[in-house]
Amino acid sequence: MRSLSAPIVEALVSIVGSHAVLTRAEDLVPYSFDGTATLNERPSAVVFPQTTEQVVRCVQLAAAHGTPIVTRGSGTGLSGGSVPTPGCVVLCLTQMDAILAVDPRNLTLRAQPGAITQRIDDAAARHGLFYPPDPGSLRISTIGGNVAENSGGLRGLKYGVTRDYVMALEVVLADGRLVRLGSSCVKDVAGYSLKDLFIGSEGTLGVITEVLLKLVPRPAARRTMLALFDRIEDAADTVSAIVAARIIPCTLEFLDRVTAGCVEDYAHVGLPTDCAAVLLMETDGHPAAVADEASQMESIARAHRARDVRTARDDAEALQLAGARRNAFAALARRRPTTILEDVTVPRSELAGMVTFIAETAAAEALQIGTFGHMGDGNLHPTFLTDERNQDEMRRVHRALDAIVKKTLELGGTITGEHGIGLGKKPWLRQQMGDASFELMKQVKQTLDPHRLLNPGKIFD
Amino acid sequence: MRSLSAPIVEALVSIVGSHAVLTRAEDLVPYSFDGTATLNERPSAVVFPQTTEQVVRCVQLAAAHGTPIVTRGSGTGLSGGSVPTPGCVVLCLTQMDAILAVDPRNLTLRAQPGAITQRIDDAAARHGLFYPPDPGSLRISTIGGNVAENSGGLRGLKYGVTRDYVMALEVVLADGRLVRLGSSCVKDVAGYSLKDLFIGSEGTLGVITEVLLKLVPRPAARRTMLALFDRIEDAADTVSAIVAARIIPCTLEFLDRVTAGCVEDYAHVGLPTDCAAVLLMETDGHPAAVADEASQMESIARAHRARDVRTARDDAEALQLAGARRNAFAALARRRPTTILEDVTVPRSELAGMVTFIAETAAAEALQIGTFGHMGDGNLHPTFLTDERNQDEMRRVHRALDAIVKKTLELGGTITGEHGIGLGKKPWLRQQMGDASFELMKQVKQTLDPHRLLNPGKIFD
Repeated sequence: MRSLSAPIVEALVSIVGSHAVLTRAEDLVPYSFDGTATLNERPSAVVFPQTTEQVVRCVQLAAAHGTPIVTRGSGTGLSGGSVPTPGCVVLCLTQMDAILAVDPRNLTLRAQPGAITQRIDDAAARHGLFYPPDPGSLRISTIGGNVAENSGGLRGLKYGVTRDYVMALEVVLADGRLVRLGSSCVKDVAGYSLKDLFIGSEGTLGVITEVLLKLVPRPAARRTMLALFDRIEDAADTVSAIVAARIIPCTLEFLDRVTAGCVEDYAHVGLPTDCAAVLLMETDGHPAAVADEASQMESIARAHRARDVRTARDDAEALQLAGARRNAFAALARRRPTTILEDVTVPRSELAGMVTFIAETAAAEALQIGTFGHMGDGNLHPTFLTDERNQDEMRRVHRALDAIVKKTLELGGTITGEHGIGLGKKPWLRQQMGDASFELMKQVKQTLDPHRLLNPGKIFD
Repeated sequence: MRSLSAPIVEALVSIVGSHAVLTRAEDLVPYSFDGTATLNERPSAVVFPQTTEQVVRCVQLAAAHGTPIVTRGSGTGLSGGSVPTPGCVVLCLTQMDAILAVDPRNLTLRAQPGAITQRIDDAAARHGLFYPPDPGSLRISTIGGNVAENSGGLRGLKYGVTRDYVMALEVVLADGRLVRLGSSCVKDVAGYSLKDLFIGSEGTLGVITEVLLKLVPRPAARRTMLALFDRIEDAADTVSAIVAARIIPCTLEFLDRVTAGCVEDYAHVGLPTDCAAVLLMETDGHPAAVADEASQMESIARAHRARDVRTARDDAEALQLAGARRNAFAALARRRPTTILEDVTVPRSELAGMVTFIAETAAAEALQIGTFGHMGDGNLHPTFLTDERNQDEMRRVHRALDAIVKKTLELGGTITGEHGIGLGKKPWLRQQMGDASFELMKQVKQTLDPHRLLNPGKIFD
């Protein structure tokens, strides 16, 4: 760990106050990792700005001294995107957490980057409105982190991802300039869409200090169902058949036997632990549409040999079932010391093949892999239950991981559907993008952050 | 007009064939303007590539000789985006018009850039699917032009704009490199979203040679209604009240008295010519949802003093009503020799004030302005019916235009909702974006097209 020089620390203190600067080794520990297994690095300092002006001054100071900056919120990322760079200052934006305005006439919500995702939707709900993106971590993740990672979630198939709800951003650039990108107009084609460049750029192009989000009407009705299958292929075919029937449910979540077993151990919601696949299906919208779609989805599941299809009797049971799925990661994480959560995504038509390949790879390498994910949008989370202290096992994990990622690319998929590249997926990014696109991306980085101050070493070297 | 040197013409002929290169003055006339009034410039040559490989070679040739390139499709743009630059070669992509694949399992459609927008939706419809973006010009505009301009349309409020349906692009960069951006996965966060940089970049960053589009299920039902108002404010309040009731109709189109009169003269669909505002309202989706929403929308309109609310009896009448709105521009264009179609957009809550301001400005400058537009998303098209040969009137037109655009910015709006900056809106772009964002955009252009070969002089100087 490198230390900052005393004058820099003093300057940081003069900007944010001494209570908002951490430099003692023991205080830095909680900020040396995110939600990604096996990655950590101690920062030189952590600062907690309260205002955009303070962020601007911190960035200017860091730029003047060539000190790298890593921005973070709650640190729930799953690709190492907010793991500190050696010698960096961590800008932790959790104290800039205000929801500044909800505008029901224009269907917008303005918030600071540290606002918790769940609180955003709660604020919308008080106006009968809805903020759909729901990453698994929504109860603790910050909206700034969601935007920086372009987070997905369980409702992606019907409602899209974070990008689809970002109307405008306020961003501090690497040289300390403050820019506002986008507008509160539903349609706006004035100039390049620079905001889209910052969404999903993982903190490597600027520091997001305010977001303007689009809201939609809250659906009037919802139906939650669980379909149980003895063969994974039947679950995958059910998903395909539902889409082929021109139904776009808000959720089509898949849990394999390993995951369902762990979730049941953890949450006791009555999931069977002996079936090959559990499909959590949710439809929402107008009550009549929901009733029709639910009935069609049940028929389709039964036609594809579902052993059973259960419908939640009420909201409480629906929340319990959906909550069980949300806890999949936590439930799996209890099984072994190290949990490596993958995030590969394939075109929907390739799902069955991909799930089978993962299971075969696990068997071939004698590994425990629990697979769950957003089957509706092809986004799978094969989760390695392992132990980083066991070097032989870790070698097999890395070999399996490499095979799974390469298979994904073979099938026309993406190496990350919603977790980002961060540190974890860097080795495969050039292969996915191709040389020309990869170089283009580096040129954009070079243009916006020529001195590589912002989250250096993430996405690419 | 500047001529190309003989060796460059010969090289172009060797790439695309002599039948696909135009250089004679009379052949160039149709390619010297787009849909924007008062703008035209003769190109040096027009070439019609048939393949991506030919586009690559044309761009490489132009780059080697420093010859500017202006890409165009059908030339329906309304901001001068495809008006030639002096001395340029026009790359006209209308012959690369194949719909390459419709994939109902993954809900995607792959097409060449010259495919006509309407044909894209027709191809989707044959699979029970839907391509929602519907710019006014959809029967003749090309999908490449739609992507380059990020075209909107009548269904923007509910369904979004072209950007929301572009999953991947193939693009030829200014130096002739070919890149593929995006993927066929619903979720993909691998690297910066470079495709979003090219969408809406108006041909200034690259030449789009292939698009992969997202499709959605075709709505099962649709209801089309016409509400007639004696006061514009009542129409605007009806729109606000519909949204406040948590209804997002697919269309909420407004025509003022001037526009309704012109449309009725032209199309004879039975529009009254004596009411201050006509609101075309469409809802689509599940039949029960459509019935509920239509009934609520009718009640809301009546509660806001609608003189009458008519519901189309059948699809034929619905198409006739919607078609009448689609013809608004053509209908207005018959009235006077020159038609200047504006495209300002304000937050929905500022609509009534903006419409009133436009009417007052028209009266103050003694001009004829017909206003219509997408009231649901705040996107208005005040249309100047004028005569470019009358210099005094044109001075008043420009003064009125400037006042309307400045008022838009005051109200937190955008100077262009769906037509782009092109040549027409350049004077106000810096003011809307702010200095820092504007400079950032220029830096991006400099990075991607350092020799300013691609559509130079558009968006900014």
